Formats: sequence, structure tokens, C-alpha cells
Amino acid sequence: MKLPSFEDIVDAHMRISPFIHLTPVLSCTTLNRISEADIYFKCENFQKVGAFKYRGATNAVLQLKESQKASGVATHSSGNHAAALALAASKNGVKSFIVMPKNAPEIKKNAVNGYGAEIIFCENTLESREETLAKVIKQTGATFIHPYNQLEVISGQGTAALELLDEISDLDVVLAPVGGGGLLSGTAIYSKGFNNEIKVIGGEPELANDTYQSIKKGKLIPVGHTNTIADGLRTSLGDMTFEIISKKVDDIYTVSEDEIIEAMQLIMERMKIIIEPSSAVPLAAVLKNKSEFKGKKVGLILSGGNVDLKNLPF
Amino acid sequence: MKLPSFEDIVDAHMRISPFIHLTPVLSCTTLNRISEADIYFKCENFQKVGAFKYRGATNAVLQLKESQKASGVATHSSGNHAAALALAASKNGVKSFIVMPKNAPEIKKNAVNGYGAEIIFCENTLESREETLAKVIKQTGATFIHPYNQLEVISGQGTAALELLDEISDLDVVLAPVGGGGLLSGTAIYSKGFNNEIKVIGGEPELANDTYQSIKKGKLIPVGHTNTIADGLRTSLGDMTFEIISKKVDDIYTVSEDEIIEAMQLIMERMKIIIEPSSAVPLAAVLKNKSEFKGKKVGLILSGGNVDLKNLPF
Repeated sequence: MKLPSFEDIVDAHMRISPFIHLTPVLSCTTLNRISEADIYFKCENFQKVGAFKYRGATNAVLQLKESQKASGVATHSSGNHAAALALAASKNGVKSFIVMPKNAPEIKKNAVNGYGAEIIFCENTLESREETLAKVIKQTGATFIHPYNQLEVISGQGTAALELLDEISDLDVVLAPVGGGGLLSGTAIYSKGFNNEIKVIGGEPELANDTYQSIKKGKLIPVGHTNTIADGLRTSLGDMTFEIISKKVDDIYTVSEDEIIEAMQLIMERMKIIIEPSSAVPLAAVLKNKSEFKGKKVGLILSGGNVDLKNLPF
Repeated sequence: MKLPSFEDIVDAHMRISPFIHLTPVLSCTTLNRISEADIYFKCENFQKVGAFKYRGATNAVLQLKESQKASGVATHSSGNHAAALALAASKNGVKSFIVMPKNAPEIKKNAVNGYGAEIIFCENTLESREETLAKVIKQTGATFIHPYNQLEVISGQGTAALELLDEISDLDVVLAPVGGGGLLSGTAIYSKGFNNEIKVIGGEPELANDTYQSIKKGKLIPVGHTNTIADGLRTSLGDMTFEIISKKVDDIYTVSEDEIIEAMQLIMERMKIIIEPSSAVPLAAVLKNKSEFKGKKVGLILSGGNVDLKNLPF
């Protein structure tokens, strides 16, 4: 298995920069006072489609061969990866096929539809998703773009850390949330390659702590059914992200649902920006382990901002 | 009556820059597509205390004489000006006295308290506020800092437009919301002084259209009781802001409550930033008068972000 390298991320950065937003890095006096650290928030909630996922999807689409482009791309997802792949494909004149459970929220179906994808509905089980996706790929010849366990995707996600370190080069620690592990993997590869002294830490919900368990036990332990409010982090690592995280990430800190909600409210009320619950997990980890971060320069990736404002958890 | 000049705003900029946030200017592909204009949002929702009011309050406090500093500053307000004055004063070692209605929301009392002000409660009538303020000033010798009808305050508010034009110098139009008129006055003085060709437009709720009425009739017509959702814009012009707006502002566009709410939702959902309803009024005006702005470079000041996230209007 060929793992993505530091150079792959630099290449991805050159490749995708004209097509993505260079998102701002914000800081907040009040949150610095509360945490007693110096936190730099990389705002991927302002990225296209409202999430870092647009980086990896764009990097994957831009590397398709001409023959692949003609047959389109496919994935199964009802979340940010679906929207990201749909938009990245349509911007490049490539057709996209998104397998999505019948009962996905209308708002998500409409978003993916609006980005020009063809939606294929399935039952709400992993089995039905994978079966339906296999059928679509067989029929269309589309190329499968994995939401995280793929070299091009991880390399794309790593460009958020590249931009962050380009702006604030003397960070002591970088944190990212971990679900499937694409963002954390790319973040770790880039940050360690940039400066091996930088600590890289993943933030994970206690209710979906498969990364924490997998690292501790030294083997992939998939997450069971979970309803963590951090809906972007309900997935399990893949073999590639597991290997990268095992090698490159210093620690995984887990946090409770209440801690996630409290951190989410702090960011929204104090920074006046909209984030989804997954984005709040790393700040929750910082606040829970204050002494670890005290006086340090901390980079923190806010993964996305797609949340139902009519149904906030606080 | 000495009106603030272009130079007063440049001076204010030099004076307050070390103490305020240089707020970002954001744009949004989707909102540009919907409006068919090229909109640059000056994000004063990211300003200290969450509103542009911190500029004017800081500029006023920094110009106090030593003798005035010793006796403190005073105002009556339960909104952003109260918080802004309280923080600007405490940062400069000056005492502040804020007259506030007894029934003001706890959250506002706590905020002002947290910024170190002394709160003096009054009844919820203009008469009681003014009487109580007069009494406080008599007892303490504090200097009254008006929320808008004062040279130093207007000059401070004008620095938002200065920063905006410093970043995007070729704007065709600049819009700001209008309540008491401090922000719109400062915006107009700076923008017209920078380039007299720039159109300056105020956005106002139909339910508090005193500026529209006053300009049309050529005399100050105070707003009556109003419950417009744009709570920052329920106040009437003062004699100074009326004179400036009469001379310098090209037009006042009014919008309905539904139009304000729709624009607010668009900004929050598409830009992933939190704004208060008053901030949405200028975008509502752009969308209502699309042909006026089509193809133009439009600067738009988002006045603040202090809104109850548990009680959004959409």
C-alpha cells in the first residue's frame, strides 16, 4: 500500500489551489483567555460546500485520466463528501453518481442534486450502500472516489494543514477531528514533514472512539452503531488511515457529547462563525486537557459548517 | 455644529487601530450568483464585543482629557453601544456608568457587567433613561458618550469603511444599515472623501423608516414605537447624523421584515457566519433592487453578530 507523502500534499496544493478557497485563520481573545493557549482556527467551514472535503474530492477529480473522466465518478455518502464530490466533478465537466439512503434528509438530497450529481437511492444499511455502489460502477464504469481511504483524497485534505502552517509557521501542536481519518492523516503527514517537533493530536467523540481503541490495541477496531452528535465522525478508520495515524499521530483525545456541545456553543457565540458539531471536537479536547496546551501555539482545524440552524444542540 | 470630516476618520483610524480588530472582508460565490453583483462583506460581527460600535466608543474614550478620565464615562443603552463603551472604558482604566432598563435581558446585563461597567437601572421609557442618566452624570461628573450623535463616535464608526476601501479600493457602491445613523454617517463621509463617485446607500427596515421619511420631507421625523426584528435599528437619527446623511448619502432603501429574515438566513447558511438581523438589512436592500446593483462592485458593512442563537427568526 503506497501511503501519501509530504510531497503528495505539496503537489495537491499546487493542483487544487486555483479551485478552492484559501480559508482564513482566525483567533479569538476570549477563547485564548479561557484555554490559556494561543489558538489558531483554520476555518474549513468557509471552504466550498462548507467543509474540508472539497479539497480531497477536487484533488481526486483533477487526477482522473481522460478515459476515466468520460465515465464519471461515484461514491456512497449522504454527508459532506457527497456534496464535495458532486461539485468537484461538475466544475470539471465530469458526471457524478452518488449512492444515498432513501431516508436521507431532503436538504442533503437537494444540495447534492443542486451540484449536478445523479443520486441513486439505496436502503440505509452499509450492505445496501456497497451493493448499490458496486452495481452503479459496473453499469457506468465510473471511478470510485473513497471518502477517506485513498491517496489522492488524503493528500487533498492535507492541504488545509499546509495553508495553516504557511500562515502560522511556529505552531507547537496541530489538532484535527478524526472520523474516517482522512483529514487527520493528511494533517499529520504534512505537519510532521514540515517540522517533526510539531505534535499532532486527533480529537474524537467518546461515542465513536474507534481510533482511540484501534491505536491502543494496535489493530483496526471498527466503530459500532453510534449516534454521536458529531455526525461527521461516525465512520471507522480505513486500513490506510489507520496505518498513517498509527505512525504519525502523537495522541488521540476523546471527549463527551456535553463537552462537544459546550465547545460548539463557545465557538459560535464567541467567534460568530457557524460550525458543525464535528468541528468542535478538537477545542473540546483542548479545554479538557488544559495543562497539556497551556502557553502553547495551537493550530486547530475546523472541519466544516454544515449544521441545521433550526436544530442547534445548545 | 462641527461635523466630522474625512481627516477625522483617518485620525480615528490611526488612534484606534492598535485596540480594535482589523476585521476580514469576505465574499461568497453563491450570494454573488444570486445577486448578480460582486459583494464584499466587511465583517464587523467579528469586531470586539461583536459589533462596529466598539470603534466609535474606543475613539471617544481615547480622546478624553485626563480630568475626564478620572470621572468616567456614561451612557444609556441596553444594546451594543453599552457593551462597547463598557469594554473600551475598562481597557483604558476608565470607569463606566451604563443606564439600562430594569427589564433588559439578563444576558445583556451580564455582558455589560462582565466588561466592568457599573449598571444603573431605570424604567423602560426614554424619559426615565434620560432622567436617570442626567442624575448619574450630575453625581459622578462622568462624560456622556452618545451612541451616535457625536463627532468622535461617528469618526470611529467611519473607520470600518476606511478599512474596507483600503482592501477593495474600486467599489462602485457602499451600503450600511441605518438606525441612529452613526455608522452610515461615518461610512458616507469616508467613502465620498475617498472617491466622490462611490454611491453610498443606507438600508432601513420599513417598520423603522424614520431616515427614509426624514430625508424625503427634509426634516427630522423620529421613529415611533417599533418592533422591527432589526433591534439595532429601532432608534431615530440625531440632528448631526440627519445633517450628514442629508448631505452625503445617495439613497435610503427600505425592506420588509420578511426580506430581512430571508437575507439573514442566506448570509448565515451560505457564508457560515453569525449576524444579527440589523446586519442583514443592506443585503435585503440589494436583493430587492437587483437591477440597481447588477454587475457592480458592492461593499456592504455587516454591523454585528449579537443574536440569540436559541431564538433565530427563520
